[in-house]
Amino acid sequence: MTKVAVVMGSTSDWPTMRLAVKQLSELEIDYDTKVISAHRMPETLTKFGRDARNGGYNVIIAGAGGAAHLPGMLAANTTLPVIGVPIKTRTLSGMDSLLSIVQMPGGVPVATMAIGDAGAVNAALFAAAILAVTDSRVADRLQNFRSAQTRRAIESEATLDD
Amino acid sequence: MTKVAVVMGSTSDWPTMRLAVKQLSELEIDYDTKVISAHRMPETLTKFGRDARNGGYNVIIAGAGGAAHLPGMLAANTTLPVIGVPIKTRTLSGMDSLLSIVQMPGGVPVATMAIGDAGAVNAALFAAAILAVTDSRVADRLQNFRSAQTRRAIESEATLDD
Amino acid sequence: MTKVAVVMGSTSDWPTMRLAVKQLSELEIDYDTKVISAHRMPETLTKFGRDARNGGYNVIIAGAGGAAHLPGMLAANTTLPVIGVPIKTRTLSGMDSLLSIVQMPGGVPVATMAIGDAGAVNAALFAAAILAVTDSRVADRLQNFRSAQTRRAIESEATLDD
Amino acid sequence: MTKVAVVMGSTSDWPTMRLAVKQLSELEIDYDTKVISAHRMPETLTKFGRDARNGGYNVIIAGAGGAAHLPGMLAANTTLPVIGVPIKTRTLSGMDSLLSIVQMPGGVPVATMAIGDAGAVNAALFAAAILAVTDSRVADRLQNFRSAQTRRAIESEATLDD
Amino acid sequence: MTKVAVVMGSTSDWPTMRLAVKQLSELEIDYDTKVISAHRMPETLTKFGRDARNGGYNVIIAGAGGAAHLPGMLAANTTLPVIGVPIKTRTLSGMDSLLSIVQMPGGVPVATMAIGDAGAVNAALFAAAILAVTDSRVADRLQNFRSAQTRRAIESEATLDD
Amino acid sequence: MTKVAVVMGSTSDWPTMRLAVKQLSELEIDYDTKVISAHRMPETLTKFGRDARNGGYNVIIAGAGGAAHLPGMLAANTTLPVIGVPIKTRTLSGMDSLLSIVQMPGGVPVATMAIGDAGAVNAALFAAAILAVTDSRVADRLQNFRSAQTRRAIESEATLDD
Amino acid sequence: MTKVAVVMGSTSDWPTMRLAVKQLSELEIDYDTKVISAHRMPETLTKFGRDARNGGYNVIIAGAGGAAHLPGMLAANTTLPVIGVPIKTRTLSGMDSLLSIVQMPGGVPVATMAIGDAGAVNAALFAAAILAVTDSRVADRLQNFRSAQTRRAIESEATLDD
Amino acid sequence: MTKVAVVMGSTSDWPTMRLAVKQLSELEIDYDTKVISAHRMPETLTKFGRDARNGGYNVIIAGAGGAAHLPGMLAANTTLPVIGVPIKTRTLSGMDSLLSIVQMPGGVPVATMAIGDAGAVNAALFAAAILAVTDSRVADRLQNFRSAQTRRAIESEATLDD
Repeated sequence: MTKVAVVMGSTSDWPTMRLAVKQLSELEIDYDTKVISAHRMPETLTKFGRDARNGGYNVIIAGAGGAAHLPGMLAANTTLPVIGVPIKTRTLSGMDSLLSIVQMPGGVPVATMAIGDAGAVNAALFAAAILAVTDSRVADRLQNFRSAQTRRAIESEATLDD
Repeated sequence: MTKVAVVMGSTSDWPTMRLAVKQLSELEIDYDTKVISAHRMPETLTKFGRDARNGGYNVIIAGAGGAAHLPGMLAANTTLPVIGVPIKTRTLSGMDSLLSIVQMPGGVPVATMAIGDAGAVNAALFAAAILAVTDSRVADRLQNFRSAQTRRAIESEATLDD
Repeated sequence: MTKVAVVMGSTSDWPTMRLAVKQLSELEIDYDTKVISAHRMPETLTKFGRDARNGGYNVIIAGAGGAAHLPGMLAANTTLPVIGVPIKTRTLSGMDSLLSIVQMPGGVPVATMAIGDAGAVNAALFAAAILAVTDSRVADRLQNFRSAQTRRAIESEATLDD
Repeated sequence: MTKVAVVMGSTSDWPTMRLAVKQLSELEIDYDTKVISAHRMPETLTKFGRDARNGGYNVIIAGAGGAAHLPGMLAANTTLPVIGVPIKTRTLSGMDSLLSIVQMPGGVPVATMAIGDAGAVNAALFAAAILAVTDSRVADRLQNFRSAQTRRAIESEATLDD
Repeated sequence: MTKVAVVMGSTSDWPTMRLAVKQLSELEIDYDTKVISAHRMPETLTKFGRDARNGGYNVIIAGAGGAAHLPGMLAANTTLPVIGVPIKTRTLSGMDSLLSIVQMPGGVPVATMAIGDAGAVNAALFAAAILAVTDSRVADRLQNFRSAQTRRAIESEATLDD
Repeated sequence: MTKVAVVMGSTSDWPTMRLAVKQLSELEIDYDTKVISAHRMPETLTKFGRDARNGGYNVIIAGAGGAAHLPGMLAANTTLPVIGVPIKTRTLSGMDSLLSIVQMPGGVPVATMAIGDAGAVNAALFAAAILAVTDSRVADRLQNFRSAQTRRAIESEATLDD
Repeated sequence: MTKVAVVMGSTSDWPTMRLAVKQLSELEIDYDTKVISAHRMPETLTKFGRDARNGGYNVIIAGAGGAAHLPGMLAANTTLPVIGVPIKTRTLSGMDSLLSIVQMPGGVPVATMAIGDAGAVNAALFAAAILAVTDSRVADRLQNFRSAQTRRAIESEATLDD
Repeated sequence: MTKVAVVMGSTSDWPTMRLAVKQLSELEIDYDTKVISAHRMPETLTKFGRDARNGGYNVIIAGAGGAAHLPGMLAANTTLPVIGVPIKTRTLSGMDSLLSIVQMPGGVPVATMAIGDAGAVNAALFAAAILAVTDSRVADRLQNFRSAQTRRAIESEATLDD
């Protein structure tokens, strides 16, 4: 039973991160949702990271904003693939979140997605792509999603008004 | 036989991307190296992307600089996980590469690493993490790498001079 | 019969790109409108790019946002002049679109316009300028547009209230 | 006889702009080279812009750095297509040049290329693409250049060491 | 009779530039208001710049946005002091305006103020400071303005609610 | 016995962080030097943070570069004052380090200094300022340092050549 | 009696800075609120800085926006710890405030917090951390605040809707 | 006797600021050179600012880098025109200096020049332009400088090699 953890630094990240959850659901991928603040719940973070592989998780999606340390610190505590979603911020529009997540030092990677909503959707799709490497049912569903998406894109041209 | 494709947009990206290759070697992960310029070899890009899964690849690592379209366009042509490495540029230090790779629209993800050398090393490690989801030997090697890395970091303190 | 293709990556770019279409109309330049997502419709993109010259197009205008690969990939598939319009984005205000379009490597140019609405209008005017190199009727219309624009700018001073 | 004007704001831009000249030569496109400082020679700029079309020019390439006003002011004085090359600067790496050139207001376009050397090469190629709209010999040469470039890119893979 | 020219690139700059006019009025400094688009009215710009000193102007305030060439090109056509006001833009918040105005090459200075409203107010105050070098009545009024401003700032503390 | 911990994420930060150590020495403030990589030694980080107060430390100085999580994660594990030094990076010059350290969420502060060498010196001086709140000998030494610094600044004028 | 000065450059900073005041209140730390414009009240600034230590202050919190000189100039006039809060600005979102505060030269530190509201809250918490170095009652209250904050973060997960 | 004060924050700014001095000399404008660190010599700064007008200065040129407070604080202490030169910095290339100087709040202007050497030259030229408002000999010299500069620019074209 493949399982993805969708972790966020704060409930204020939920409007973005629920898009990841929604996308996982559509791909019939099992997931858990967690709120783990790197700075307010560091013990929980450490424990979650260390136990994640044995707890049955295959992939971790982590969204955080500003000085976003959650994805990187989870990656520091596990060798599971960690996908980071930089949350848009009110002051610097998420450029701070992006650099805090993507500029990891050599040795501990975080797979960084786009800032904000697109990043959350893509985190789910990338988690699916990871699982699809060896799970052909997920691969098929992902392929179907992509085909349907292509179809919708093609058909969208007809909706342009004058 | 798990296999990673290490693709770069130009031979000028090789000094960075060879670090990915070196890291894959150390983790005993099989790989191929390709030069595919998105803008000069678009046919090759399309063909490579479409055939990658059937050709036995499990993960694609793609490095490119400037208006870096290679990782995103490979991702557009395959559902395999694509890991992007933004190459440092002479004018904008790789900020252009980073934004061109990470800001993918919802629907087609690219897992983006840090700009430059650290990103190349981490692309290899992230590829290993993906494979390690179901390949326990890779998982063990990755765990060993991380343990050794931690040991080296701990021991490095002794090297500080006064 | 000179013809311009106005291509956009998504219907969400239409509010901006319709300004290009409106400007072409005013200059009596024939055009077609296309929605081609680089990442969701890569086959369509390739085919459109390759067939564009023979299909009777003289100039391509391409608008896209974020990791904007459409203009550059069209340019990779044709030697027709490609004019890129960076669409304003919600997170980074179009700086991502701009760098993704303008920072093309040597060998495959994209003529980049300003971010957003001004860029769309100017894409149409630049397409006209290209056609005007050898089509004196377009040159005359363009000159008339510029003269009228100058007149309006001169007269606008009278509208300043106190 | 198609003719391109290669204008630069200062002789210090020559190491970059000579790449444009070199590329035009290779494509057998006739050109003139001019030094016109927008801020030190505004009269020359105005006169050159106004007379350019009648003087036999078909396309203007203009390179400038910092508060780069040359391309935009040439475009203000002619309806010929103006291609702007943002020169790399010592302080802000050409980001100032880029924004000063690309962010033109609606009504007066400048076709902006990448910052620095790649931009100069591409300015020449884009000038060729403009001429190629109606000049099939230039179109052929451009196509040949692109084919050769693709071939070189394909063959470059063999030069990777290891 | 000292006189300041308040020039703007477009009537859309008026909501900002009227703050300069208002400040000049309060300091009883004579001024004229002009709309001169650098790109749409280059002839007017050149003529205005060249005639400004003989026309009785002592200082020029110029506001413009985006690829803001008005202040620099006025400075290129006169040796009068030119004060530039970078107008806030919808896409890049005026960072483009700022760099287009402030990064002038050695030889032709523009005195650049803050982006937006504060910049417009300060342009008027700086014009006053220039005139005050030799006009003691303006110097007195400027000193009075500053003293009153200091008084208001001191008194403002009382308005903080709890 | 007041004691400051000078922690850095990597030995490569030492050329910068030794300036903090040097400054502490000059102020006769006791210190320990530690290498703790947030991402390679997360256990050590957690333990160090938790034990710091009881271990006799009064202030922590933490220097890190890139996605710099060390200062923030130390702050998450202690209520001692944590002073962050953003290390200059090769790609983004330390802008990544700065934003990763300074943009902490409400609830867990890190006192951020300038990027690079000046920041390291100032971290030591700020640690001294903290201790000086209740330790009048440190306050005196800090005052002496500042007086001497002022004297040197005043005297430096004489060294200007012509 | 420990006392914190909360200084701001303008009453327009109050909506942000009142969060600092509110946080100090909750921690039962005595404070005064001051409006001191660095540019409009430089005498007051100098006098306040010089007298602060003798006036019974232990820590200064200073919030300012744009070319934010208040924190740095207070630090220049006292050896008390000065905590800077970069106020969000309408044009550059506070990036100008941040750089104006954080990039202090070696010799005169300002402890910089995040831009905007989070920074104001954290300034209060950091002031508390400074006092807590030697005041165990403040240390206890700070620890209690952090524990409660952790509890609230843990409990917040339950509020995620579906 | 018109007199310009050339003030810099540190002797390390001298290689840039001497270009201002050199330019003033060439225009036969009397000047004094001062080193006044805003943060290390705040008393000197205040005194210098307050006494500047009575001391016979007409214009102040102030160069500073990083969190550059010197120009703004001088402007806060005088109503003389203050011209700011943002010094290039090692970490952020002078973007920090620029924003710290140019983003002054409404009420206290600083006339900001380009970052680095061009800015220093232009500060001298702008000081001359201020004096030239009422001093026709300076106006003549400035006009001569500009004419010679134009001549040199025109002649420079001949130096382009092939």
